[in-house]
Amino acid sequence: MEGMDRSMVSLTSFDAANNGSYVVSVDKGVDFANYFCTYGFLYHQKEMLSDRIRMDAYYNAIFQNKHHFTGKAVLDVGTGSGILAIWSAQAGARKVYAVEATKMADHAKALVQANNVEDIVEVIEGSMEEVDLPEKVDVIISEWMGYFLLRESMFDSVICARDRWLKSSGVMYPSHARMWVAPVRSGLGDQKMNDFESAMRDWYSFVNETETNYGVNMNVLTKAYHEEHEKYYLKTSLWSNLHPNQIVGTPAVIKEIDCLSATVDEIRSVASKFSLPITIDRTRISAFAGWFDVHFRGSMQEPAKTVVELSTEPDEDNPTHWGQQVFLVHHPLRVNRGDEVIVSFSMSRSKENHRLMDVDCAYELHLSSGKRLEPVAMKFFIE
Amino acid sequence: MEGMDRSMVSLTSFDAANNGSYVVSVDKGVDFANYFCTYGFLYHQKEMLSDRIRMDAYYNAIFQNKHHFTGKAVLDVGTGSGILAIWSAQAGARKVYAVEATKMADHAKALVQANNVEDIVEVIEGSMEEVDLPEKVDVIISEWMGYFLLRESMFDSVICARDRWLKSSGVMYPSHARMWVAPVRSGLGDQKMNDFESAMRDWYSFVNETETNYGVNMNVLTKAYHEEHEKYYLKTSLWSNLHPNQIVGTPAVIKEIDCLSATVDEIRSVASKFSLPITIDRTRISAFAGWFDVHFRGSMQEPAKTVVELSTEPDEDNPTHWGQQVFLVHHPLRVNRGDEVIVSFSMSRSKENHRLMDVDCAYELHLSSGKRLEPVAMKFFIE
Repeated sequence: MEGMDRSMVSLTSFDAANNGSYVVSVDKGVDFANYFCTYGFLYHQKEMLSDRIRMDAYYNAIFQNKHHFTGKAVLDVGTGSGILAIWSAQAGARKVYAVEATKMADHAKALVQANNVEDIVEVIEGSMEEVDLPEKVDVIISEWMGYFLLRESMFDSVICARDRWLKSSGVMYPSHARMWVAPVRSGLGDQKMNDFESAMRDWYSFVNETETNYGVNMNVLTKAYHEEHEKYYLKTSLWSNLHPNQIVGTPAVIKEIDCLSATVDEIRSVASKFSLPITIDRTRISAFAGWFDVHFRGSMQEPAKTVVELSTEPDEDNPTHWGQQVFLVHHPLRVNRGDEVIVSFSMSRSKENHRLMDVDCAYELHLSSGKRLEPVAMKFFIE
Repeated sequence: MEGMDRSMVSLTSFDAANNGSYVVSVDKGVDFANYFCTYGFLYHQKEMLSDRIRMDAYYNAIFQNKHHFTGKAVLDVGTGSGILAIWSAQAGARKVYAVEATKMADHAKALVQANNVEDIVEVIEGSMEEVDLPEKVDVIISEWMGYFLLRESMFDSVICARDRWLKSSGVMYPSHARMWVAPVRSGLGDQKMNDFESAMRDWYSFVNETETNYGVNMNVLTKAYHEEHEKYYLKTSLWSNLHPNQIVGTPAVIKEIDCLSATVDEIRSVASKFSLPITIDRTRISAFAGWFDVHFRGSMQEPAKTVVELSTEPDEDNPTHWGQQVFLVHHPLRVNRGDEVIVSFSMSRSKENHRLMDVDCAYELHLSSGKRLEPVAMKFFIE
């Protein structure tokens, strides 16, 4: 992260493309109120610790690749309860630095002690952008993935940690990440449309009654009320654990990240044009679904002995707490096997809150007959 | 508000009792993220505008007391959609200043224009602590009441407005406010206790499984998990619209506020010792319920012609969006007509967030036989 001003005490992000770095500083208090505070609750930590797919992936990645840990120095970015740090110690690490921004660090300290690894694991309360370590590390491990991978923008902190503290021979856990999109059918679209129409009907009654009973005409607010509710019901991505049967076409990778080399600039926005071939006959596209996977491959110099994958794709037996993000198409598309949807997808950080995302998505249906339908452009919000 | 430093740009509160004023400054960005932001949504405004009891009270208070408004200057503190400002103009005000801290001010401007009162109503976006008006006003009107009256601490801003902008002959709308407490019976207590016990059973399973499957013993966190969930399920006041039949004793006024003279210091904490005589035979106290009422009495110099009351007491036909706040007693008390509960109640602002409250509540049951049971002390949180 060239040119990073390490004296900044706020979270920062850079735009190297803009002729050198500029700093967008995020107020720590606001970031806490908006984001960090939920991670201070044991309830929230337990939810993540109870996700067996997540736990198994990290557990297996570590214990089936002890050569990365034994005798090594490890940094756990955003240690939360301390679980990854404790496993790293149990896998033979010489030293583990476990950094946590919230008061959860106190619980991590207790957990480290209760599990007899306090000689190895040092819990440090603070933000990754600020803390100082006494040495560089061999491994950076972190569970930083948000919904559809990049929501929460936590990877920025991992990049910061890597650029400050990872040895040139070091390894990232996970090493790679991918974002996927697929066309899906779902009843959610109809449900949300009904909710939206119901909210508008209710609004019109309200406008009538307010004029009748209170002599104030609220109709001038109808457009804004409509926009607010359309955004809430139809344009905000939904969380769902979809069934694989809901996927009606071949999923596409829309972003690949090498955790060893990725820059904040590369992940600040995701832009991709891709094709989704339809594989189910006589069906509908109700939405586009987004999910991610990560892999623990080690590095070129020090590859994993056993490569572990953590996928959040629709899976009947292996749902995760991430689910998938569902972007509703407002007029479900009738499609058949052999058709194709060409999608131009562009995701960037919300100006109001860099941890949330704005999405521009244009899609064009190409029928198997050769006919092409008019492209449709849509906006979505990942909140 | 003696000694107020008007150059502060943050919300401030004072402790005159501490040998002159000290300033506790609240960061505006944090306050927005924690509090103000919800008021920027039309959804939220509509909820309040759809509360017929609330709307009727303010509407009647204004239009049945036009002498307070006709030809006068009015200040609406926290105008939201602008409704009170528009009514004030319709009741004949010469000029209305409608101050709103959020972007809802834009909608208020549109509403004022659409209702043809733009020559009278001036919408000003900003905080009451910062804006400057060209003149002092005859009336300050505001709907500032939160759950159990003081949650949200918005009255601080009304006091600030009054001390800066109300003429010595001016009138407050509402003029008076009271906080009430009553003993109630409710199924909520059992429900929350079940939820809590279920959460703890789930935790113990989780601790077992995590040790078995992942080699990490989480038991050291049990105490903290228990505390976090006990607070969440049992110690955080609940919102409910109770039925009058649930009240098992005579409600008591625990706080009275004269809006013309109250200081922030007087409302910063509420301390009261009061008696709740039980009026229902062979029943239980499951909780204490808190609510408020306000009155529009005008001033001594210029009384209302028609006094209007807005009450949020349990009422089958007239529920409000405020409901009541329910403070669960963890061991329901068996009581009979003629018994009495002596309560020592103390509510103060949370250190982490001045808009939320901490409550200390000690109660002692005096049986009609003369026997007195051991006092029980409890802590609650209004979140």
